[in-house]
This record gives sequence, structure tokens and C-alpha cells, in this order.
Amino acid sequence: MSHPIITLLTDFGAKDHYVASMKGVILGINPGCTLVDISHQVGPQDIEEGAFVLASAISSFPQGTIHLSVVDPGVGGPRKPILIVTSNYYFIGPDNGLFSLSLLREKVKQIFVLTKKKYLLSPASSTFHGRDLFAPVAAYLSLGIKPEALGERTDTWVELSLGKPKQKAKELVGEILHIDVFGNLTSNIDGQSLSGFTGGHPFSIRVGRHTFLGMKKGYWEGKKGEMIALIGSGGFLEISVRDGNAHKKLKAKKGDRIRIAIADRAR
Amino acid sequence: MSHPIITLLTDFGAKDHYVASMKGVILGINPGCTLVDISHQVGPQDIEEGAFVLASAISSFPQGTIHLSVVDPGVGGPRKPILIVTSNYYFIGPDNGLFSLSLLREKVKQIFVLTKKKYLLSPASSTFHGRDLFAPVAAYLSLGIKPEALGERTDTWVELSLGKPKQKAKELVGEILHIDVFGNLTSNIDGQSLSGFTGGHPFSIRVGRHTFLGMKKGYWEGKKGEMIALIGSGGFLEISVRDGNAHKKLKAKKGDRIRIAIADRAR
Amino acid sequence: MSHPIITLLTDFGAKDHYVASMKGVILGINPGCTLVDISHQVGPQDIEEGAFVLASAISSFPQGTIHLSVVDPGVGGPRKPILIVTSNYYFIGPDNGLFSLSLLREKVKQIFVLTKKKYLLSPASSTFHGRDLFAPVAAYLSLGIKPEALGERTDTWVELSLGKPKQKAKELVGEILHIDVFGNLTSNIDGQSLSGFTGGHPFSIRVGRHTFLGMKKGYWEGKKGEMIALIGSGGFLEISVRDGNAHKKLKAKKGDRIRIAIADRAR
Repeated sequence: MSHPIITLLTDFGAKDHYVASMKGVILGINPGCTLVDISHQVGPQDIEEGAFVLASAISSFPQGTIHLSVVDPGVGGPRKPILIVTSNYYFIGPDNGLFSLSLLREKVKQIFVLTKKKYLLSPASSTFHGRDLFAPVAAYLSLGIKPEALGERTDTWVELSLGKPKQKAKELVGEILHIDVFGNLTSNIDGQSLSGFTGGHPFSIRVGRHTFLGMKKGYWEGKKGEMIALIGSGGFLEISVRDGNAHKKLKAKKGDRIRIAIADRAR
Repeated sequence: MSHPIITLLTDFGAKDHYVASMKGVILGINPGCTLVDISHQVGPQDIEEGAFVLASAISSFPQGTIHLSVVDPGVGGPRKPILIVTSNYYFIGPDNGLFSLSLLREKVKQIFVLTKKKYLLSPASSTFHGRDLFAPVAAYLSLGIKPEALGERTDTWVELSLGKPKQKAKELVGEILHIDVFGNLTSNIDGQSLSGFTGGHPFSIRVGRHTFLGMKKGYWEGKKGEMIALIGSGGFLEISVRDGNAHKKLKAKKGDRIRIAIADRAR
Repeated sequence: MSHPIITLLTDFGAKDHYVASMKGVILGINPGCTLVDISHQVGPQDIEEGAFVLASAISSFPQGTIHLSVVDPGVGGPRKPILIVTSNYYFIGPDNGLFSLSLLREKVKQIFVLTKKKYLLSPASSTFHGRDLFAPVAAYLSLGIKPEALGERTDTWVELSLGKPKQKAKELVGEILHIDVFGNLTSNIDGQSLSGFTGGHPFSIRVGRHTFLGMKKGYWEGKKGEMIALIGSGGFLEISVRDGNAHKKLKAKKGDRIRIAIADRAR
């Protein structure tokens, strides 16, 4: 690969040496690769949040990018270390669901369990597979080592049971997946599900006790302090407050329900 | 450009995928550029703070550096996306005042409104111009595309009304612009204004109820816990507590007044 | 050097321009070097924490890496700016103990006080040696300038009095050095001291009012919520709670005692 890119996503935070240790190992094997941090502020051991942040980022990267992701509460235990090859990318990390949101939009070509000691640090610790196992595999892959040489073929991967929105009689019911630094609430209701349900009719959005009418094209359409809903940059329904903070205003939290209903025209 | 550098400054925080998405887009267009984060911890939508941090950093970068900055409460609205070419640097981002402190010390050569769809992501979202508009323009510029090809010439840019210090009968009055991680208080009183006012005489500094005599050359001149004032590394009057935290000790906050007076020799 | 790596560790935080200013200076001198952040979240002026994080990271980096570290409460004062050359690495920063933990495992070859103005920014501020003194020296070193050209030879460096664990009649007594983002408590008890004391016998660990039996190989061996002790990835005894947070559960803080005793077989 010319100009290989390796992205890193972990729950290791910015304070400790963990991320730097992974980077040192990678650059020791392939000094010519480009490292890009996606996030290291995933909540500790929060696989769902890691899966969401990763899935939101990947499509911006060029083909051939290696996505190295470690949110790994079961490190050292029976969960498998894997490499997933899709039409566009490589995913390396623990097989615990972390990649399952990303794979919804990717075509999976091959999956490998990482078993070849030749390409791991030796001795590998049982507590830091990010450094001892996943980092060297990513680095060797970026050097052009074939996926087949890195592990044994397998056919399955662990999927998260992150709910798709549920269509009920008169409502489409989703939930809040993620709250960003601006207090924007991202739901699991994708643009397609939403337009399939509403058929283009005006609709209302209910979160907790708040009900308001959707939908704007961008933040600037709302008045200052007004609640607005729009399809965000990741393709999902997002709730915002113009020049404000929806998270604080709605006192909403991750997992809270979001209910879409066709607006009553008589009102 | 050989070895082009693109800096990034945003209010996107370190938790979400936003910064990584911008980097993925840039590296997809120009895999050979070097990316440097200035800060992504600018307060959400705090254009003044972004302007201050950017202006403090730029002079350390080599000529030709591209400064890509996005603190953009009006994203998708009428504010213009711009490229400003100065004798030393390129500035890319929303035209909302974010660059105006940096431009106080730069000689502006040309300004362009970014209108050429050929060099933007398509379709561009209305909520994430950092990724869809500013990132690709920075990347193409780093590849050697001429500024003229990226947009339409214009003559003006938005300036912040960040106060210069005010000279009164017996006082020079400034305000606190920024508080750093050590609790140092940086004011808008630059070294030149200060020496112009004091004419080399000893002077006192008043912040809230605290008054003390200035000026030290460096932190180490103060005794432990002593309040000191000095010209900081960015060229502005800065208030510190030796081995302590001026922010906590003075209970000062952004915008608080700082008053300079010639010290009474009789005392 | 082909592919020179410069790591950066500071207490400058992620909000301000300080780290970016250092990087700008380095890339202006050597555009071809690779910059890796170890941490900028070291507690303000906490030399011990900086020393610990640095020592934990270095062994993952390839030979020849330049470790540029600035936790520098005495900036501008009498403390010396130094370059330490070991068999594996270069260390650049203030001579205040910051490197002393790293040097426990490195063979020191040469030490230089950085005095050559030719390789410093001019004029150098008295408050920001990270940018004006240490960054240019690291950059010139990465370009191949010889250490001899950068300063004057010296023979000593400042060492921290970070306690080694103390062996008492029936106990090995260490203390908590560091608490990571997962709440894991790392002690100053290294694997060798521990096995020397226990001689392979089962042992108990006491922290505050909590006593439990050690030792596991990895996090996954504990039951959910169980307290476990293991030798962490840095080689020191570490206390964790499986799928939990030892820091919160034990209400432990940095400096707290950890007591190891041979377990009573009769119980």
C-alpha cells in the first residue's frame, strides 16, 4: 500500500500512555504509515458508543484504510481477536460487536481470527491486546502482509442488538444513540426509515414531555432557542436546539425514546 | 507545495467523530500532507476563544501553512465560507470573525468566497461544512490548486469587536481574554500598549479587589503563591500565581477588567 | 535519521495553543519527522505523574526515538535544560526528575546541558521553553545534528525520590502511583519485588480497609465486580475491579499504601 492510513478508536482516554504505546509499536513496524485518531474518549468499556462513533467516521476515509478499534472489556478472555476485510476497509479489534454498526453499510469479504504469533508482540500481555496484538497486526497489514497470513478464516462476527426503529400502529419509535459535545441528540432513526414512515407528510416528534414539529434542513433555520430536528451528517435523525443545547433543554439521556407521528392536519 | 501542513482548530471536542471525518476527507485527497491539531476544545460555538487560540498558535508555523478552523454556529446559513491568503499563511473557514485576531498581525493579500462545487464534497450536508466544504478545499489547496480556482474574489471579512485596551486619565483598562489550563489569565493588553502607557515607570495591576505591583520576567521570579504579571509567550499581559492558580486565587473569569495604574512613588 | 519520531509529553492540556506551537516549530525545522503525542493531560506541574506516564510509554517506541517532555514548574529559573542520550533513546526537557523513572531501565550514555543559542529560537521567552528551547533542539537532533553540538557535557541528572516498595517484617509495602481512566490503580510494586517477597506463596493485598487474595493473570478471570490484582502491562502490580472501577470502589487515591502479606494457610 502506498500511503497506508491506520485509524485508532479506543476507550483509553487522553491521560494515560496506552494510545501512545500502540502508536509506538505500529511505527516501529511501519514507520511510513499515517496514524489518525478517531476518538479515545469512548466511555470506558462502552462498546455501543464505540460502535456508533466508528460507524459515523469510516465513510470519510479513503479505500484501503485500516480501522484499528479497541473497546475491550473482555481482554484476555475468550472473545476472539479479529480482522474483517470489506470492499472498502480493514477492521481490526476484539470480536464483541464493536464493528457491527460499521458493517451494516459495508460488504464483508473475509473474516480472520488473529492467531499467528509471528505477527504479535512476544510475550503478549493478557491485559493490553491493543498494544501487543492489534497494533502489530495493523502495522504488518499496512506493510502489505496478506490477511491470510495473519490468521485463520472464520465466517461470523458478533453483532450488537442495537435496535432499529420500531414501526407501531401510529408511531415510529426510536431511541437516542449518542449525545455530542454540542448537546445534539442522535437517534437510531435513519433518513430512509423516517421517510418510509411519514411518506412526506408533516410529522411531530416527541421526546419525554416535549413535542414539536419536524423537520429542518440545517441548524440555521431554527430561531434562537428553538427545538429542531434534522437528518444529521451521519444519516440519522438528530435533535438540536438552535444556539443552545438539546441535551440540557430536554434533560434527555442515551436510550430515551423518540416518537414520530404523522401530524394531525386539523390542528 | 513540498511538505504541506494543514492545522485544524474546531469546537468539536475529542469525543465525537467530527475531527476524524475531516481528516479522512483531507487524506483521501492529499495523502501526503501533515495534519496538526491546534485545539478541538474551544468552547462550543465560542468564536472569540477560537480566534484567540488560533492567533496565539499561528506564528510558530512555517510559511505556507494552511490553517483550517471551524467554530461555526451559523453553519449552513448565510455566513460565507472563505479562504484568506496572507503573506505567510492560508486561512480557511467560516467568515464569522474567527480569523480576525490572527489577521491583526498578518498582511492580507487576497480573499475568496468558496463557491466552486468541483472542489467540495457532493452532496454537501448543511450541518457539517467542516467535512464537506472546508476540508476538501484545504486538501486541494495543499495539492497546489490555486486559490483563484477555489472561489470568487471578495474584499472584506468579518471582524470581531474584541476590545483593545482603553486608555483613561489615570488607567489603562483591559480585560481577561483567556484562562489556560494552569489558571493563567491572559489579557488583551499587549506589551506595546503597556509600555506606551507606563513609559517604563513602575505600575500596579488591579483585578477585582486584588492590587499588586508588576512586572516579572518569568514565573520563577515570584515566591511560592505570589501573584505575578508578565508578558506571556503570545505577547499579552498575563497574570499568574507562582506554583499556584491565578484563576482560582482571584476568582476571575473571562471578560473581567484589568486596570493598570502608574505606581505612587511616595508609598 | 530516516523516519525520525519525536514524542511529546506535557501538562499543557488540549485546550490551549501550547502543544501546537511546539509542533509548528518542530515541523518548521524538520518537516519530515513524525510527531506522536504521549499525553498532554499530565496534572499541571505534576512531575511525578509525568515521569510515570513517560516511563510506561517509552519501551514501545523504536530505537532512536526522541522523547520531548515538558512538565516544568521552574521554567525560566535555575533548573537546567537537558538532553540525555541512552542506548535506545534521546530525552529532552527540564532537568527536574521528569526522566528519572524512564532512566531506571535505560543505560545512560551521555548528558548535555542545552546551551547552544544557535539551535534555540531567538529571542527565547522565559515562560515557554517547550516552544523556544526544547522543540527546536528536538527538531535539530531529528535532522541529524550531533548531541555534542547542542550543549555542554555534564554527568548528573535530577532523580525523583519516588519510593521503591519497602520490605518490612511481614509485609511488602508500596503505594499507588497512578490511577487510569478505567479506575485501575497502579502501584510502585514491580513484578520482581513482588515475587521476591512472596516466593511464589499465595498472598493477600490490603488497601485501606479492603483485603483480598491475589493474583490473576488478566481482567477476565475475575467475576463481575470482583476485586483483582495483576501485573499490569507496564510491569507493576495493578488493582482492578472486573467490569467496574477500583478507584471508586476502594475510594483510593494516589499515594495510598498497598500492603502485601503471605496468606495464612490455616484460614
